Amino acid sequence: MTLCLIPVRGIGEVRPGDDLVGEICSRVELVDGDVVVVTQKVVSKAEGRLVRVDPEDREARAALVAGESVRVLRRRGDLIMTETRHGFVCANAGVDLSNVEHGWAALLPVDPDRSARRIRDGIRGRLGVEVGVVVSDTFGRTWRRGVTDVAIGVAGVAGVLDLRGTKDALGRELAVTEVCVADEIAGAAELVMGKSAAVPVAVVRGLDPAFLREASVAGEVVRRHGEDLFR
Amino acid sequence: MTLCLIPVRGIGEVRPGDDLVGEICSRVELVDGDVVVVTQKVVSKAEGRLVRVDPEDREARAALVAGESVRVLRRRGDLIMTETRHGFVCANAGVDLSNVEHGWAALLPVDPDRSARRIRDGIRGRLGVEVGVVVSDTFGRTWRRGVTDVAIGVAGVAGVLDLRGTKDALGRELAVTEVCVADEIAGAAELVMGKSAAVPVAVVRGLDPAFLREASVAGEVVRRHGEDLFR
Repeated sequence: MTLCLIPVRGIGEVRPGDDLVGEICSRVELVDGDVVVVTQKVVSKAEGRLVRVDPEDREARAALVAGESVRVLRRRGDLIMTETRHGFVCANAGVDLSNVEHGWAALLPVDPDRSARRIRDGIRGRLGVEVGVVVSDTFGRTWRRGVTDVAIGVAGVAGVLDLRGTKDALGRELAVTEVCVADEIAGAAELVMGKSAAVPVAVVRGLDPAFLREASVAGEVVRRHGEDLFR
Repeated sequence: MTLCLIPVRGIGEVRPGDDLVGEICSRVELVDGDVVVVTQKVVSKAEGRLVRVDPEDREARAALVAGESVRVLRRRGDLIMTETRHGFVCANAGVDLSNVEHGWAALLPVDPDRSARRIRDGIRGRLGVEVGVVVSDTFGRTWRRGVTDVAIGVAGVAGVLDLRGTKDALGRELAVTEVCVADEIAGAAELVMGKSAAVPVAVVRGLDPAFLREASVAGEVVRRHGEDLFR
C-alpha cells in the first residue's frame, strides 16, 4: 500500500492557550488510521512553554539550558549536549530561539507523550476519528552531519516496533528486531514541512495498522542513563 | 504537495551479477523527480559482496567485522560498534547475516555512493527518466532505542540540505541550518518496506525539486573522525 504525507497549511502563529486541535481539524480531513505529526514548536507555544530571554545574553541562555537539563554530556563552544529531564540527549536541552518571537525561547513540553495524547483525544472528541499523534522535534546525531526530526511524544502509534520472533524473507529469525517507527514517521513528515515553510503539521496516511497501538516515547524510545555505550 | 511512498513488490532473491536496475524498471513506473530507495542488502548481493561464514563461529564473525573496520569504538558482549572504512559508525561494521542464505554474510558495498550512481545511471539509460537514488541501511542510535534506516549512498538527491541564510516563519535566520534529508528519505521508505516483507525497493514521489542535485553521503553526511564529540 502507498503511504502518503500530506502537509497541513494555513496554521498561523500559535499562542499560549490557542486551540491547536481546532486549527488542525479545520484544515485537513482526517480519517481513521491517520497519524498526525505536530512539531514541538507549536505544541510548546500552545501549552505556554515560552520564557523571556535576551538572545544576546549567553549566560542567560546557558542558565535556561541548565534548568532544563539533568546532566551535561559534552560542551564545545556554544554547543552544549545535555540530557533533559525527559531523558532526551540533544543540543541545548531543546531550548530553541528560532520560529519564536524575538526575546523569547520555547522549551520542550513538560510531558510530550501527554501532549500527544491530549491532541489525539481532542481530535477523537471533535471528529470521532481514531488517529495516532506524533510530537516531533529536530535533533542532531552523533556521527552523521545534519539534523533529522524524531518523535519526542506519541499517542496511538508505536514508538518502537518489536519484531522478535519475526522471520526474514528466507525464513530465519531476524537479527534486527526493534525498529523505531515513530522516529521514521517524524523524519518522513519533516520532508513535507521544511524548517521555514510554516507547515507545523503533517498527516501520514496509509501506515500499516499494526503500528497503531498505545505507546509512549518515554517508555519505548528513550534509553535510560547507563543503558547506552556513549554517555 | 503530497509526498507518496510506493513499495516495489515482486523483486525476488537477488544474486551476484543480477540486473537490479532491470528488476526495478520492470516492476514500477518511474517518472522524473522520483527518488528510488534501494536497501543495502540487495545492492550488496547484486555486487557480489557476500562471504562465507559459519554463523555459529563467533571468532570468524569477529574477524569479518574487524576486516571491515578501521577503528573499534565500543564493545559489549556480542555487540561491537566500529567505524567502517567508509566512516560509518554502526554495529558489526554493517556485516549482516539476516536475509542472506545460511552460511553467508553480506558486507556493505565498497562505495555505496558509486552503487547509487550506477543504479541512477542505469535507470536513466533504460527509461530516459531522471531519478535520484538512495542506498539505505539499518543503523542503531546512541541514545534512542530501536533502529532506523539511513542513507549510506546517494545519487541525484541531497545528503544534507544547507539552509544557511534561510529565514524562519518569523523572518529571522534559522538556527538549525543543515537537515539530513537523505536519512529522512531512507527512514520514510522503511515504513513501507518492513524488515521481513521482501520489499527491498521503494519509490518516493513528490519531493521538493530543490532536493534533487548531485551529492554523496561520503562528502555530506559522514562526520570524519575528530569532527564529533563522541568517538
